[in-house]
Amino acid sequence: MFSVTVRDHLMIAHSLDGEVFGPARRLHGATYLVDATFRRPDLDDDNIVVDMDLAAREVRGIVGALSYQNLDDDPDFAGINTTTEFLAKAIADRLAARIHAGALGPGAHGLTGLSVQLHESHIAWADYHRAL
Amino acid sequence: MFSVTVRDHLMIAHSLDGEVFGPARRLHGATYLVDATFRRPDLDDDNIVVDMDLAAREVRGIVGALSYQNLDDDPDFAGINTTTEFLAKAIADRLAARIHAGALGPGAHGLTGLSVQLHESHIAWADYHRAL
Amino acid sequence: MFSVTVRDHLMIAHSLDGEVFGPARRLHGATYLVDATFRRPDLDDDNIVVDMDLAAREVRGIVGALSYQNLDDDPDFAGINTTTEFLAKAIADRLAARIHAGALGPGAHGLTGLSVQLHESHIAWADYHRAL
Amino acid sequence: MFSVTVRDHLMIAHSLDGEVFGPARRLHGATYLVDATFRRPDLDDDNIVVDMDLAAREVRGIVGALSYQNLDDDPDFAGINTTTEFLAKAIADRLAARIHAGALGPGAHGLTGLSVQLHESHIAWADYHRAL
Amino acid sequence: MFSVTVRDHLMIAHSLDGEVFGPARRLHGATYLVDATFRRPDLDDDNIVVDMDLAAREVRGIVGALSYQNLDDDPDFAGINTTTEFLAKAIADRLAARIHAGALGPGAHGLTGLSVQLHESHIAWADYHRAL
Amino acid sequence: MFSVTVRDHLMIAHSLDGEVFGPARRLHGATYLVDATFRRPDLDDDNIVVDMDLAAREVRGIVGALSYQNLDDDPDFAGINTTTEFLAKAIADRLAARIHAGALGPGAHGLTGLSVQLHESHIAWADYHRAL
Repeated sequence: MFSVTVRDHLMIAHSLDGEVFGPARRLHGATYLVDATFRRPDLDDDNIVVDMDLAAREVRGIVGALSYQNLDDDPDFAGINTTTEFLAKAIADRLAARIHAGALGPGAHGLTGLSVQLHESHIAWADYHRAL
Repeated sequence: MFSVTVRDHLMIAHSLDGEVFGPARRLHGATYLVDATFRRPDLDDDNIVVDMDLAAREVRGIVGALSYQNLDDDPDFAGINTTTEFLAKAIADRLAARIHAGALGPGAHGLTGLSVQLHESHIAWADYHRAL
Repeated sequence: MFSVTVRDHLMIAHSLDGEVFGPARRLHGATYLVDATFRRPDLDDDNIVVDMDLAAREVRGIVGALSYQNLDDDPDFAGINTTTEFLAKAIADRLAARIHAGALGPGAHGLTGLSVQLHESHIAWADYHRAL
Repeated sequence: MFSVTVRDHLMIAHSLDGEVFGPARRLHGATYLVDATFRRPDLDDDNIVVDMDLAAREVRGIVGALSYQNLDDDPDFAGINTTTEFLAKAIADRLAARIHAGALGPGAHGLTGLSVQLHESHIAWADYHRAL
Repeated sequence: MFSVTVRDHLMIAHSLDGEVFGPARRLHGATYLVDATFRRPDLDDDNIVVDMDLAAREVRGIVGALSYQNLDDDPDFAGINTTTEFLAKAIADRLAARIHAGALGPGAHGLTGLSVQLHESHIAWADYHRAL
Repeated sequence: MFSVTVRDHLMIAHSLDGEVFGPARRLHGATYLVDATFRRPDLDDDNIVVDMDLAAREVRGIVGALSYQNLDDDPDFAGINTTTEFLAKAIADRLAARIHAGALGPGAHGLTGLSVQLHESHIAWADYHRAL
């Protein structure tokens, strides 16, 4: 099994709803390092998992659309706790939609899995893995 | 599949028994970075894998009890080689016991897996994964 | 010349005022890794630069007071652009005040310099250095 | 499931053939951080996954043979695109051959899997996993 | 004293001339992480050291012009050993020329120093510091 | 001003004497990442700060002699608190002696400064700088 990962980042504000979040219920923010991992069992004819430049561009597009926002005001997330693990899934699902729409090229149809890992600090991170 | 990881560290002395260990048979020591990863297939009602503060507190409790010790003198490890991979399992098993005892809250009953990764240096680390 | 550094982090929301900031004029947020470095020409009688536990506790106190806040609402920063470089200075100055107040113990009077470095992402950071 | 990882690195020149590679079709180069991960379900009698010194030595041997080379001139790779993902597999396969030849000692017969991860920069890496 | 650093990277081929370089006399290559640090004693009216976006863009321009090249073929470096420390200076000097040409905006005239650090691997890096 | 840094590591046991050290008064241990930085105002005829291989070998020699030891039993450190900052100086001074003895080659006579940074964990490190 092969994989390729590209890293990007985003900076957002948000608040979290629920006693479990303690002081994070207040409006605060985070820098998330975003590691998007693309998996497949075999390489394509170019000996690659995916066109890394296209992959990075698509990650950038998704991450850029979320960047420098207060996620509490994003209608896509209305009434939703934008936790690190939820955002990992949100980014992975948007990326999967772009892959299925052909944005990573025809070779990307060989991709079988996708993970998104979000580092919220040097001591905490979350990961979401899904099939394609 | 979702996961959340929290990082802590501990500093211990120990020696290792067996020809394979070469100079590490002498009393020496290590700083271990401890990455504890909690896994589950779905998020709970708060959109989280686990209460990250509780998780960090439990990891701290287990790691703190081992910290600043000579593991050669720890009765729990009498006659045992406290290798990096063994310690990863020891910490994971103690953490699993705490989870089963309810220390991470009722939401933590949804956890299905647990990994502990121990970095002993910038060029060597070990990992242990278990079900919950 | 000796130095000792301790790392902590904080997560905040804020917006920045001025054309130069582009999309960062919107309310967004950041995780800042905070590296506080204490300097002195000679070690004290314990062979240390500073009591590292006290140093970490004071950094935690200052960083904790800023954590999980919208800095736009902090009266201390009213009308001020809370850029990464400004926050590095703000944290350094608060830490210097604590040192001068004796919070790091009598040995800390030997400290001659202090730096605070704030990482806002894996590709950008700022640093402020001052005398004590 | 246990694993142990050792890190090494290599510096090579190469060019890549195919439109997908854009400017990387020109002769250029890379530093690859090489993380070799050895897996097995149980520890051996010494409480280890593998003799870490032997493992590091074998990785060094394989990596050293590739180091400071123009891979375009390596007959083993004639007509082959030496992408990061391909090189991860090439190193893993050479390491697997050494394990099967007994180079990691008799205890290494308990190994069931092997991964090689190659970081080509702070923002891109590839991984190959195989059974043993 | 304040500073701000932005990170980028480049991937090049080259060879080095001189007995001291051993196997690095052969054509090989490197990924260099490039950390460009801008210094000044006081912040400008926006509370910044430099327009970080402009700074990153200029670093990208300089680094991009060197990327995916065989430096042995670059007429600017004819007969020159493109060591890590030399390249740090080359990038710093090009950046200084851009600053003096006004590419970082009028606020950048307050800059007094510039450093470029190049990481060639996880275990080796070089740094060049100059006045502006 | 130029510098070059090489990284190595060591793993030791020790205890620290003095109330300030709290639980670190007990026998424990540490992995220290060792970053040795060599400085000079100009490059030599090979365009280098120092022969990096020789530098790495000398660092390895000094670090290797301390590795896998209980520093409490080292006669060189009898009655001395082997704190991180003290060890940074001890390693720097041993390295300076090797430089003065010619171990880094004749070109190394151009070196004017030397720093040793010791990371004891991901959240704490010390640095010692001296002239040559």
